[in-house]
Amino acid sequence: MTAREAYDQLRTHHREAVLFGSMGALMGWDQRVMMPKNGSKFRAEQMATLAGFLHDKETDPRLGDWLARCEGSELTTDPTSVEAVNIRWWRREFDQATKIPKSLAVEMARVTSLAEDEWAESRAQSDFKRFEPWLSQIVDLTKQAAECLGYEDEPYDALLDRFEPGMTAKEIERLFQPLREYTPKLVQRIQDAPKKPNTSILNRHFPVQDQVQFSREAAAALGFDFDSGRLDPTVHPFACRVTPGDTRITTRYYEDQFNPSFFGTIHETGHALYEMGLLEDHFGEPMGESVSLGIHESQSRMWENVVARSRPFWEKFFPIAQQRFSALSDVSLDDFVFAVNAVKPSAIRVEADEVTYNLHIMLRFELEVALIRGDIAARDMAEAWKDKFETYMGFRPPNDKEGALQDVHWSGGMIGYFPTYSLGNLYGAMFYNQALEDLGDLDSMYRRGEFSPLLDWLRKKIHNQGCRYDAKKLVEHVTGKPLSPQPLIDYMEAKFSALYGL
Amino acid sequence: MTAREAYDQLRTHHREAVLFGSMGALMGWDQRVMMPKNGSKFRAEQMATLAGFLHDKETDPRLGDWLARCEGSELTTDPTSVEAVNIRWWRREFDQATKIPKSLAVEMARVTSLAEDEWAESRAQSDFKRFEPWLSQIVDLTKQAAECLGYEDEPYDALLDRFEPGMTAKEIERLFQPLREYTPKLVQRIQDAPKKPNTSILNRHFPVQDQVQFSREAAAALGFDFDSGRLDPTVHPFACRVTPGDTRITTRYYEDQFNPSFFGTIHETGHALYEMGLLEDHFGEPMGESVSLGIHESQSRMWENVVARSRPFWEKFFPIAQQRFSALSDVSLDDFVFAVNAVKPSAIRVEADEVTYNLHIMLRFELEVALIRGDIAARDMAEAWKDKFETYMGFRPPNDKEGALQDVHWSGGMIGYFPTYSLGNLYGAMFYNQALEDLGDLDSMYRRGEFSPLLDWLRKKIHNQGCRYDAKKLVEHVTGKPLSPQPLIDYMEAKFSALYGL
Repeated sequence: MTAREAYDQLRTHHREAVLFGSMGALMGWDQRVMMPKNGSKFRAEQMATLAGFLHDKETDPRLGDWLARCEGSELTTDPTSVEAVNIRWWRREFDQATKIPKSLAVEMARVTSLAEDEWAESRAQSDFKRFEPWLSQIVDLTKQAAECLGYEDEPYDALLDRFEPGMTAKEIERLFQPLREYTPKLVQRIQDAPKKPNTSILNRHFPVQDQVQFSREAAAALGFDFDSGRLDPTVHPFACRVTPGDTRITTRYYEDQFNPSFFGTIHETGHALYEMGLLEDHFGEPMGESVSLGIHESQSRMWENVVARSRPFWEKFFPIAQQRFSALSDVSLDDFVFAVNAVKPSAIRVEADEVTYNLHIMLRFELEVALIRGDIAARDMAEAWKDKFETYMGFRPPNDKEGALQDVHWSGGMIGYFPTYSLGNLYGAMFYNQALEDLGDLDSMYRRGEFSPLLDWLRKKIHNQGCRYDAKKLVEHVTGKPLSPQPLIDYMEAKFSALYGL
Repeated sequence: MTAREAYDQLRTHHREAVLFGSMGALMGWDQRVMMPKNGSKFRAEQMATLAGFLHDKETDPRLGDWLARCEGSELTTDPTSVEAVNIRWWRREFDQATKIPKSLAVEMARVTSLAEDEWAESRAQSDFKRFEPWLSQIVDLTKQAAECLGYEDEPYDALLDRFEPGMTAKEIERLFQPLREYTPKLVQRIQDAPKKPNTSILNRHFPVQDQVQFSREAAAALGFDFDSGRLDPTVHPFACRVTPGDTRITTRYYEDQFNPSFFGTIHETGHALYEMGLLEDHFGEPMGESVSLGIHESQSRMWENVVARSRPFWEKFFPIAQQRFSALSDVSLDDFVFAVNAVKPSAIRVEADEVTYNLHIMLRFELEVALIRGDIAARDMAEAWKDKFETYMGFRPPNDKEGALQDVHWSGGMIGYFPTYSLGNLYGAMFYNQALEDLGDLDSMYRRGEFSPLLDWLRKKIHNQGCRYDAKKLVEHVTGKPLSPQPLIDYMEAKFSALYGL
């Protein structure tokens, strides 16, 4: 078998796998958006059956043979060629799938499935003690998984690598350090500032039907193609690509809150625009897939915070909002822009503003690194959380529900996931600076409702690249500079100094 | 391997197959109800991939070994035991799947896929000549399939058997004969009657949102469980069970027509109630599946025509309808019931009333039997249709679009499907007579809004029986009488004599 023949086998194999995987994506979307209540029992059975089938496909020993035939062949001479990229990532996926023994994978699935229910119950009762043995088990199993996956420096790196390939704990510590020093000071300056936003204007009456229409209009203006996607209401919003040509986003509506549905929709639109920009011809290949959670988050947060919370954006959209919502008729543009950018420390991550959000992430990152390093035990997590939170935010969360129990991630075994949120902010700030340099006066474009120059730039520079470069290399490739937290800090300093008159 | 072990292998195998099949059901629903336009290309690829996978599962040679081990064993001693029923039908499915050579299945899939598009185009242009070569090819391929499948008497029986197991052309001819004699005479008497319904009251203004609510209320009252299903709008309505606990129906709304959404919803509710009544514990086994299209249709037509077009039903629901639709405020109950039961020959089957509907079916049945027997050629179909239509209905369809091109079935290779619609009416009349005998005064129950006695009876007698008896035997088992068209004729005679004062 020639390398080319082996490569074609790999393509065919993965094309079929991704088609089956996309059935799972549809089932997942349907489950959270459409499925009637009593469908859940058999939906779980469908999902488990599909997962078993896909696991067998991912660990098919022929993959190892085909990969070995390709590696070192003429197909991998140029490491940025389509073939080389695909072979490299298929190898990575195959190794990840085969390194974890089936017994461990099954045990992990069993424990996390139970732990998610236990977590929900523990959170409802705000009772960390109840959840503690589950967290403890999950940490043990996760450490075992890290040993199987392998790492150069420390076990946490193996966990992180699942979500942000190539990133390490040490590197993140280095990147987050300046942010950790800067952010609490900025929050303090904001709290001391005499200027305060009037956020009550965002808690007036906003009829749901009007929110639906306004969110759709904005998403479409940014480039979301409703012939290639949908927007529906759900409880926990998410974005999901079923297949090329079919990317679906979700949001939630509150009659007395402007922010959640609007900025939630824009956030998910950012994710969707990335998915919509992946290369259809490479569906089923790493060249046609998103490269990391951090890069994904850079897209959602850039559109949500940098674009849709900017004054130029609202110079275009505020008059439209005022036509639609009588509640905004007596509000000025400046007051509105100030309100949607209000900074205020709060206990819950998903409700956090653009500035304090990174503190929530750094807190979680530090705690989970300590958990895996063995520096703190699962049983001490609730108090460790409160202590660290107080240091960062200046107050103590009132209970575990608003403390260590607020997020689902750990109960699902997703240790190593959190830092990708803030990495997204770092990446996004660097990308955006480069876009400004390449495209010029983006603000004037927004004032005219023109978002396609930015989108086209992101398509070309990031979306169409698929997995050609890992996240760090992609940043360097796009911006010509090494990854750094400084652009994010500069962005926040400029934006919030102006808003709060610091 | 013991027979019991082989049986367990069969169960496991089919359970997995039905779970994958149910992913296809969800994709099919989604495609017609939710999917954005540009999702169609990859949806087709998903469906083709799944179909290939399922075909391999259905023709897995191990099935033949397992079946051989079970057949004649102690598991099949009682032919109505769960095991015997499942083994019998699994054998049937395996034989059907393996008797058609892959080359023929692939060619059939290719031709029908193209033919469906060609049919749509030909229909749009009302140009039978354009479609004729496709029909000709499909008839040839279908005849080949009939030879592969095998038959006792004539090829058409093999085709019919795919949709109505155990039924034959001769038997249907015998059953339809009295109906063919009776129906045109009834239509003539109705046309000669001095009493005429005022159907214009059904073409007033019915706001879509109110139609949605009213249809939902009625479906729920009949027993459709919205925790185990959904109702959504679509272009070509259908019902589909994704899994137990998840059965979805669809309908379409016209602001100026009362009938399509309301009776369409009740029709699909009838299908859904059958699916909802199948035994969850036997999901993936013939014991937990519907037995034939004719039995399915008996359920949908019974609820639609016998129940929901009856005066007692409207004694309960007409006051509710009047509250919801101001267009009905000046309409009397009698006029309304007369209007929803109006009989009038028309060219299009899907718009036909309860009486002329069977003429549409008999026409198609006779034409397709003649096609397969070689008594008429595909090229003569358009004229043959018009001639026969004129004989049955008293006027000639104005064009092919309203003639031989109106239905999708033949272009999809579904020759043998049409008679199941009228068989459903025959079965339904017999079932309903038995229900009246067993349950007493159903009319009074409807006046009180009580439909669960009928539903519970159908559950026990029909739905829970799965494939235990084939359609004809099920009728005999439930009613103690052999299948006959007389109950349907008696029902129509009584109902329409009273309505039209014949």
